Amino acid sequence: MPSLPTAALSSSSSPSLFPISSYTSPTKTQFRFCLSFALPRFTNRRPMKCSATSIGKETVISERPHSFLRETDGLDDDSVRSRFQRMIMEVQDSVCGALEALDGAGNFKEDAWTRPGGGGGISRVLQDGHVFEKAGVNVSVVYGVMPPEAYRAAKAAVTDQKRGPVPFFAAGISSVLHPKNPFAPTLHFNYRYFETDAPNDAPGAPRQWWFGGGTDLTPSYIFEEDVKHFHSIQKQACDKFDPSFYPQFKKWCDDYFYIKHRDERRGLGGIFFDDLNDYDQEMLLSFATECANSVVAAYVPIVEKRKDTAFNERHKAWQQLRRGRYVEFNLVYDRGTTFGLKTGGRIESILVSLPLTARWEYDHKPEEGSEEWKLLDACMNPKEWV
Amino acid sequence: MPSLPTAALSSSSSPSLFPISSYTSPTKTQFRFCLSFALPRFTNRRPMKCSATSIGKETVISERPHSFLRETDGLDDDSVRSRFQRMIMEVQDSVCGALEALDGAGNFKEDAWTRPGGGGGISRVLQDGHVFEKAGVNVSVVYGVMPPEAYRAAKAAVTDQKRGPVPFFAAGISSVLHPKNPFAPTLHFNYRYFETDAPNDAPGAPRQWWFGGGTDLTPSYIFEEDVKHFHSIQKQACDKFDPSFYPQFKKWCDDYFYIKHRDERRGLGGIFFDDLNDYDQEMLLSFATECANSVVAAYVPIVEKRKDTAFNERHKAWQQLRRGRYVEFNLVYDRGTTFGLKTGGRIESILVSLPLTARWEYDHKPEEGSEEWKLLDACMNPKEWV
Repeated sequence: MPSLPTAALSSSSSPSLFPISSYTSPTKTQFRFCLSFALPRFTNRRPMKCSATSIGKETVISERPHSFLRETDGLDDDSVRSRFQRMIMEVQDSVCGALEALDGAGNFKEDAWTRPGGGGGISRVLQDGHVFEKAGVNVSVVYGVMPPEAYRAAKAAVTDQKRGPVPFFAAGISSVLHPKNPFAPTLHFNYRYFETDAPNDAPGAPRQWWFGGGTDLTPSYIFEEDVKHFHSIQKQACDKFDPSFYPQFKKWCDDYFYIKHRDERRGLGGIFFDDLNDYDQEMLLSFATECANSVVAAYVPIVEKRKDTAFNERHKAWQQLRRGRYVEFNLVYDRGTTFGLKTGGRIESILVSLPLTARWEYDHKPEEGSEEWKLLDACMNPKEWV
Repeated sequence: MPSLPTAALSSSSSPSLFPISSYTSPTKTQFRFCLSFALPRFTNRRPMKCSATSIGKETVISERPHSFLRETDGLDDDSVRSRFQRMIMEVQDSVCGALEALDGAGNFKEDAWTRPGGGGGISRVLQDGHVFEKAGVNVSVVYGVMPPEAYRAAKAAVTDQKRGPVPFFAAGISSVLHPKNPFAPTLHFNYRYFETDAPNDAPGAPRQWWFGGGTDLTPSYIFEEDVKHFHSIQKQACDKFDPSFYPQFKKWCDDYFYIKHRDERRGLGGIFFDDLNDYDQEMLLSFATECANSVVAAYVPIVEKRKDTAFNERHKAWQQLRRGRYVEFNLVYDRGTTFGLKTGGRIESILVSLPLTARWEYDHKPEEGSEEWKLLDACMNPKEWV
């Protein structure tokens, strides 16, 4: 087992939000699971080095269930975990519906699974449609166990001498959408919620909880009105809750989607946040819901406008080069992807974020001042769009 | 700075054998350099965790020099480092010549650089030719400094209380060749030589030295006669020196080019060895030379035979999927690539190993018994070919 990356899943841009045990190793019933992603920012530190735990192997199921929650959880329809799960399943439905309508030809293929101890997931993929080269929208629910040292480290500021592993719950939606037309941008979004279970002496009360997520845009060519529209929608969603959110999460997004070896961002950003728990829980649930519900309004009109724009081989080749950068970011840096690959997650769900096709030319440099150069410049020097 | 992988360059399948400081960060005059690759197997352990050192930033030069050796080294034409450098430059010439003749249309573009403290490199890339999609053949010479703890760890079996950093020399050739025709296989080869400098009290005598390298074949379709031909040439080269070499290095190759998250090898193997120093130095120099000189005979006849074979879209799509696997291996597992990306090496030289184009389909499974399935099966269950 190789050493694990820090903060494995905190910032996944992979549609497989949570690693699940592998289809290809059916004899392995448990696997190590990095939990640093699940540490809130109690102490204002970045997540600590990865610790390990295990969750059950998944079983493919033929129909998507109403809920992946454990029976005891599922009975409380008003719990945050229950409402968050409902929200992400509704968003999966609404986003996939909007994308199928936009595509006009392709349909989403659905794969669903459950796990023995509760939890499961639904992958939906539309491939080689009329508008989309590849579009994946996944939801996932995980019940796992956090090693005590991870929990104690997270709670360093709090007196808590309790020992033993800490059970947790996590749920999320994650999606990457790659259109065919080089003038239509790629989109990624991901919203997730974590809870550690109630202590034995206070059943029903969540011990700790936090939210993470974001939505970001990766065009190959800049249409300023498109990027402004996209960022405006993110800002609107943020501003409804806190005026500090957009500037803070916009910068976090630029910092996270950084291809260090190229000194480039993957794209033109959006918003990104993690370990969010220092606001009212209901407010943050509403915020995550607002962000997830903004995806269609932020993205679909852009693709609608660009999907039939005429393009030539040069445009396509440049899009393919930028897709190559997408692959580089996801395979080299993205915490969810790199962690998922190392722990035997469901590979097809993890790697659905990769484009259908990508390209690497030796020493390609766009001509200064060209449209390709402008995109590259904006990836190297993040701009304020609104 | 992220933590560095172990054994960074010991097993590079990237044509940029040695990381060199980045063109894109001209203000950075030094960078950290993982030296675990340079540890011989004195103690039969796998290389220890990475330590760091630095080498000078490269300067682009307009013409390839006769030698990258320091003047003091270059005066001794009979030294192993000098003869090894001559060998790899000759192999670069002969392989590029054979590939240009085979391609019939494409020509290699050459980029050369030197470093202030001695050393440098030559990248040669043929892109979008008649036969080759992308072919890179790089040579590199590095003078660096190994931290004392790395050297002491390597020499655990030897009494050596000397302190302070240990200067070293390294030279290598590395190449990846991706043809266009899906029936013509991809080839990778890489041969390298390391020396730590002479102690002050015994000038001229190398303190330690070792060889590494290998040649491996990655077809999309199996033509048994081709794979047998390729492995036979590897075995012939090995058998001239030691009957144990081929079986040992064939297995090492299967073990190294393993895509863990797929439970697949990247291709159908060949030979691979590292840290080789427990034989006569002259014998190993001859062995590495024999292996490098066997590349053309092992590979060119196969491509000659397959370059014009008729193919359809299905064949091309499968080749592209396998190219996707190549990308996955190189970006996720290959020690030279992952290390090079982390340390600010010359990105274009490191990533020339990536194919011009690649493809990822969601949940693609070849039909059992099909030609695609046979290739996949051989990647999952390595076979004996000779």
